[in-house]
Amino acid sequence: MADRPVGHQVPAGDEGGTPPSAAPAGPPPAEPSHAERCRTLVAGASRGSLSTIAADPEGYPYGSVASYALDDAGNPLFFVSLMAEHTQNAIRDPRASLLATEPVPDGADPLASGRATLLGQLSEVDESDRPGVRDRYLAANPTAEYYIDFGDFAFYRLAVDSIRYVGGYGRMSWVDPVAYAAAEPDPLAPVAAGIIEHMNADHSEAQVLYCRHLAGRPETTEATMSAVDRYGFEMIAVGPSGRAAVRLAFPEPCSDGDQVRQAMVAMVADARSKAAVAAPPGR
Amino acid sequence: MADRPVGHQVPAGDEGGTPPSAAPAGPPPAEPSHAERCRTLVAGASRGSLSTIAADPEGYPYGSVASYALDDAGNPLFFVSLMAEHTQNAIRDPRASLLATEPVPDGADPLASGRATLLGQLSEVDESDRPGVRDRYLAANPTAEYYIDFGDFAFYRLAVDSIRYVGGYGRMSWVDPVAYAAAEPDPLAPVAAGIIEHMNADHSEAQVLYCRHLAGRPETTEATMSAVDRYGFEMIAVGPSGRAAVRLAFPEPCSDGDQVRQAMVAMVADARSKAAVAAPPGR
Repeated sequence: MADRPVGHQVPAGDEGGTPPSAAPAGPPPAEPSHAERCRTLVAGASRGSLSTIAADPEGYPYGSVASYALDDAGNPLFFVSLMAEHTQNAIRDPRASLLATEPVPDGADPLASGRATLLGQLSEVDESDRPGVRDRYLAANPTAEYYIDFGDFAFYRLAVDSIRYVGGYGRMSWVDPVAYAAAEPDPLAPVAAGIIEHMNADHSEAQVLYCRHLAGRPETTEATMSAVDRYGFEMIAVGPSGRAAVRLAFPEPCSDGDQVRQAMVAMVADARSKAAVAAPPGR
Repeated sequence: MADRPVGHQVPAGDEGGTPPSAAPAGPPPAEPSHAERCRTLVAGASRGSLSTIAADPEGYPYGSVASYALDDAGNPLFFVSLMAEHTQNAIRDPRASLLATEPVPDGADPLASGRATLLGQLSEVDESDRPGVRDRYLAANPTAEYYIDFGDFAFYRLAVDSIRYVGGYGRMSWVDPVAYAAAEPDPLAPVAAGIIEHMNADHSEAQVLYCRHLAGRPETTEATMSAVDRYGFEMIAVGPSGRAAVRLAFPEPCSDGDQVRQAMVAMVADARSKAAVAAPPGR
């Protein structure tokens, strides 16, 4: 039964009329730490807002647009004109921050999307690091190719020492910079949008099964996936009492779309076996 | 001839073989001032990056996401949680800036798009101004409706006293804040994208006429509109010697799409009459 395809084959009403199951026992489903969420968010963009300290008007925080890449520890790397305000500001006072944001869907509340502010010291990259930094920068910013060798530009690094993460309403914290440096960006981030689209287009019945039998919401009538990461996924479950956000963990963390597919299939099998226990055939 | 429709009716080769005309005499075509461009850019968005001065790490510039509206003088109005970092920062030190950016087309170089940094003092809106500010804020940010009356939020105004404008490569300046406060956002901004799309879809021949006979580029073979504002429009003209950016002024400033249409028609008539002078019929 583990290789049974996800969704579609559930007879209508198969789970109808089952008594409410108890909410699942045990710890809350695994989810990314704020350090991981933050690292994923910053790695998912290549352009942010760089704040530096202006000389005139003196001491004012000065926001500018900056493209960036990341080093292995998640420190932003910039390629800046020596004439630009932010560069001149950083030369006088290296205190700076980079604000990176998740894309905001059209019409959505921008304050519900994630953003991270990385604060630290901004200074020129050592000559010995320049070739590697140049390669990373070009990989993240291909349009820089035509001015990457201009003489009046330089590579700068923001050595992050303080991090504010806001994942939306009510999900915010100061993130330990050591944990951020050690965190891996979510391996599913590049494919998450495709997984969500596929699940919502083709596997809405499977999602209802997940909510009913794995998430302790037996009255669910509709469910749509809203997020997926290596540790699990989130759905909006709809039922007679309204809408609720539901998170489920994968049996094991997933690092690619194929592992997600296998996990989803196993979870449908699990949901069906729990449904059968709750309402034995022929009852 | 002034009411002759734009484009389509020009017989192929009508202007072919004319000798290069001299570049048009007189002053360069009218264009928006940087104060006007800046005011238009800021009015065209409702979300930017707010930079404030952090308490911890002390004195660092702190970038955050902020939705905004504008007062009559173009000062940004914010609706902020009293618990938010930027609000706490502003209470301790009112120095702040708002970075507003033009949208960057997919795949385009982000440094070629416009952005403006408004620097000033950020402080709570006077109680007497609150109702008007609330209305403006909601008009610009409809998704704020559901928390606009929360008790732990307040309206803040950035009293702009210094402005940096970067319109892309090579177009940048510090803008006089008095000129910014007096400037009107471009009335064509809301319809500019539609005008450009229409002109490029249906009136490419008219644009070749403009370039050949009104912009001193007789060898133009293709032309596409790239920008339009109340004072005129910009095209990329293609010819044997490559691509060039071309600006033409309208006969009079235009404040809506209908006036633009009339101006375009008059300019086609003008281009045709100049073409006839350069290559009389029957020659």
